[in-house]
Amino acid sequence: MQFDLEKSIAVLERTPAVLRALLAGLANDWTAPNEGPETWSSFDVVGHLIDGEETDWLVRARIILARGDTRRFEPFDRSRHRQLNRHRSLEELLARFESLRRTNLAELRAMHVGPAQLALTGEHPDFGPVTLKHLLAAWVVHDLGHLAQIARVMAKQYGQEVGPWVPYLPPLTDHEEPRS
Amino acid sequence: MQFDLEKSIAVLERTPAVLRALLAGLANDWTAPNEGPETWSSFDVVGHLIDGEETDWLVRARIILARGDTRRFEPFDRSRHRQLNRHRSLEELLARFESLRRTNLAELRAMHVGPAQLALTGEHPDFGPVTLKHLLAAWVVHDLGHLAQIARVMAKQYGQEVGPWVPYLPPLTDHEEPRS
Repeated sequence: MQFDLEKSIAVLERTPAVLRALLAGLANDWTAPNEGPETWSSFDVVGHLIDGEETDWLVRARIILARGDTRRFEPFDRSRHRQLNRHRSLEELLARFESLRRTNLAELRAMHVGPAQLALTGEHPDFGPVTLKHLLAAWVVHDLGHLAQIARVMAKQYGQEVGPWVPYLPPLTDHEEPRS
Repeated sequence: MQFDLEKSIAVLERTPAVLRALLAGLANDWTAPNEGPETWSSFDVVGHLIDGEETDWLVRARIILARGDTRRFEPFDRSRHRQLNRHRSLEELLARFESLRRTNLAELRAMHVGPAQLALTGEHPDFGPVTLKHLLAAWVVHDLGHLAQIARVMAKQYGQEVGPWVPYLPPLTDHEEPRS
């Protein structure tokens, strides 16, 4: 499948409602535990998605589109959410993510990105030149990856309870090494 | 986390709305392709979840609770959906899954399952004795695993479009061997 702006937005704009349908009102037993040391809970993942809205995807798109002399992105802080959300509820995070995503997609639409803009580049601190197309496609995949992660982390909370079904249920044995 | 019937139902009853939020109205480019030969598309996964409602989870719970002389489960047909849904739309499948899940959870609640019932056993055709608790926990994990699968299969459709981001986006390189 080739990159398409409208089809990308169609996925990006769904994520807040998907997370709400999956997580809102659920017992902490499902949303607070993680997969083990140095891994994230569903709560942490929503916090990380908020960080992405505030400091990553659209911020970097702006840098690319500004066509300045330096288009180097700031490194993304993967632990920012840990401190920030210490006293927040999951409901607060879901609402905040929803609001930030709506604002960011409105700004993305207002950028009127066409083929010429998609080919413009920025400089990623880890892997160098990337195009706006790469960035926007990665934003979509990043959402979907973290949705898969939340489903997996939730599934693992019942890892002991399924008895002999373990080898038949892939999420229970996926990502034994922390990887998000 | 220990098995809890209400907390299990809380997840099971969300799945139709989660799938609807994620998939309804989305372009076929996202929902029709799979991960490669012998793997499933998002459309296939919803069809498989319908098969689970019609022929698997609750059917097996009934066998266990009937306490009959033979409590051996029928083998589950993992390819049933391929033929059945050939001429159906994703929207039809989402509506059908929603309706079946609602009916099945109403029946599950009406079974008034307590600790004594959860310890009753049936016989799985592959791995022998399983308790009702194992079965119901596996139903929950199965939902979450297939949600993760749908997110991963969708993510892979942009595998070429993210450029140098590939190694930073786990769903793009998860399950290179078909596993669902």
